[in-house]
Amino acid sequence: MKIGLIHPGLMGVSIGAAAQSHSDVEVIWASEGRSRETRERAAKQGFTDVGNLAELVLLSDLIVSVCPPHAAEHVAEQVAQFKFSGLYVDANAISPQRSVDIESILSEQGVQYVDGGIIGPPAWSPGTTWLHLSGSQAQNVEEFLSHGDLQCNVLGEKIGQASSLKMCYAAFTKGSTALLCAILGTAEKLEVRDALIEQWSASGNGLDQRAPRDVCNVTQKAWRFVGEMEEISETFRLAGLPGGFHEAAAEIYRRMSEFKGQKALPELDDVLSTLIAEQEEAVPVRAAGE
Amino acid sequence: MKIGLIHPGLMGVSIGAAAQSHSDVEVIWASEGRSRETRERAAKQGFTDVGNLAELVLLSDLIVSVCPPHAAEHVAEQVAQFKFSGLYVDANAISPQRSVDIESILSEQGVQYVDGGIIGPPAWSPGTTWLHLSGSQAQNVEEFLSHGDLQCNVLGEKIGQASSLKMCYAAFTKGSTALLCAILGTAEKLEVRDALIEQWSASGNGLDQRAPRDVCNVTQKAWRFVGEMEEISETFRLAGLPGGFHEAAAEIYRRMSEFKGQKALPELDDVLSTLIAEQEEAVPVRAAGE
Repeated sequence: MKIGLIHPGLMGVSIGAAAQSHSDVEVIWASEGRSRETRERAAKQGFTDVGNLAELVLLSDLIVSVCPPHAAEHVAEQVAQFKFSGLYVDANAISPQRSVDIESILSEQGVQYVDGGIIGPPAWSPGTTWLHLSGSQAQNVEEFLSHGDLQCNVLGEKIGQASSLKMCYAAFTKGSTALLCAILGTAEKLEVRDALIEQWSASGNGLDQRAPRDVCNVTQKAWRFVGEMEEISETFRLAGLPGGFHEAAAEIYRRMSEFKGQKALPELDDVLSTLIAEQEEAVPVRAAGE
Repeated sequence: MKIGLIHPGLMGVSIGAAAQSHSDVEVIWASEGRSRETRERAAKQGFTDVGNLAELVLLSDLIVSVCPPHAAEHVAEQVAQFKFSGLYVDANAISPQRSVDIESILSEQGVQYVDGGIIGPPAWSPGTTWLHLSGSQAQNVEEFLSHGDLQCNVLGEKIGQASSLKMCYAAFTKGSTALLCAILGTAEKLEVRDALIEQWSASGNGLDQRAPRDVCNVTQKAWRFVGEMEEISETFRLAGLPGGFHEAAAEIYRRMSEFKGQKALPELDDVLSTLIAEQEEAVPVRAAGE
């Protein structure tokens, strides 16, 4: 059984490692166009580099897509283009509607599509990371991926269920952190930041400690969350609920994306300055697909 | 010293009671047009009913406005119309800009205006409720109101500081509850509610217990929060941060306003049905003042 992993990023590599802990599985990947960090991660786990995507598609029994949300559809289109006809799981943070769209692209080629959603950090410890799956072939995927520190969970037969769960879960974790960023930015601009932190302390809700810490900790990952917030906004709208929470969260993370690649965590002062800096244009942020 | 209280609602009556615990203070109010519940609350605390607003303005040394945010400006206009020239504190959940606007209305009459913001539940226990104050006369107000179970806190000289702090504080408490309502509504509509609650439980973040409880508990108060969310949205925009979080929160609480006046808490099923019911019109919710 050959599992094609697209791509061995920080999360993807842990999914591949979990799959490979099954004795019948070989994880293959395609290094063409990927970064040095990704090559090092894949080599460290002993994944087989098959060179390019065409080769990966040719050799894989199961393809697992783990990439930023905005790239998910493009990855599927490329795989379809190379006439893949095996099993494909999209494990990305995308709206259920986008998952249905990806299924359409792939099913035209005879691909058996499974919807997936990862909850938790990269799967390097037991009990921290879940891969939820849905679709008629979900159980087949579970059999090959539920190993090591990754727990798979089949939700049902319907494409979109796994993505819906992922969207709803991330809506609070990443949404409430973005809200704290916006609140501290507003308090800073209106010159009540210290008073707010004192009030949080007096109220005993823990936010005096948690909010500054969470705001600084999210900076380096913020750029990756923009697309995910747009997917969540779209998911809420599909369900008839307001998408504004996560349109705003996308805008917050967009402003913080300049911290991408910084080695050390910034000071709170620097983060808040970035959040309240004059914006280049005042056009409202729109959700993906609008 | 006569303190005119507009009005002895659930919060206002506790502010009046705190002030009256000072031996030199008499709390007066105007019953004209007020509900039976308000009359009963005022009578229970022994506040003096002076009949109408004109009389209250004539007799008061200090007027304290505690009313829903949308009524704050109208109350100030009425007080100005009756030629008040004493000390006035607006303790409502309004944006700092609206507080500045109210100051303009009143200062034309020679009124000394103090900005206020209440944090916490009605002040019936020690250490739960703060009245933040700002403006050049804030210390005078503190002297008369910081008694009983109400703690006053002077933030500074600037009108808007107290309102800014109130907005930032409520942005998380009421904003994150609205977010949980939207998430559970979305999960219900997309048929992953049980899976989400199971995942929250597996992740050990406490939301499996907290979210359904908070969503049900907020129903009866939701109608009162709509205006406050619009004020917070406007405050964020004034500070250059996105207002979408609280525009969405206003929409969530608007949908829940049908639970106003219900004696018993509804079941979660009923709340979620209300949240996802077909909306009459799909026009986007706009922040106050836009």
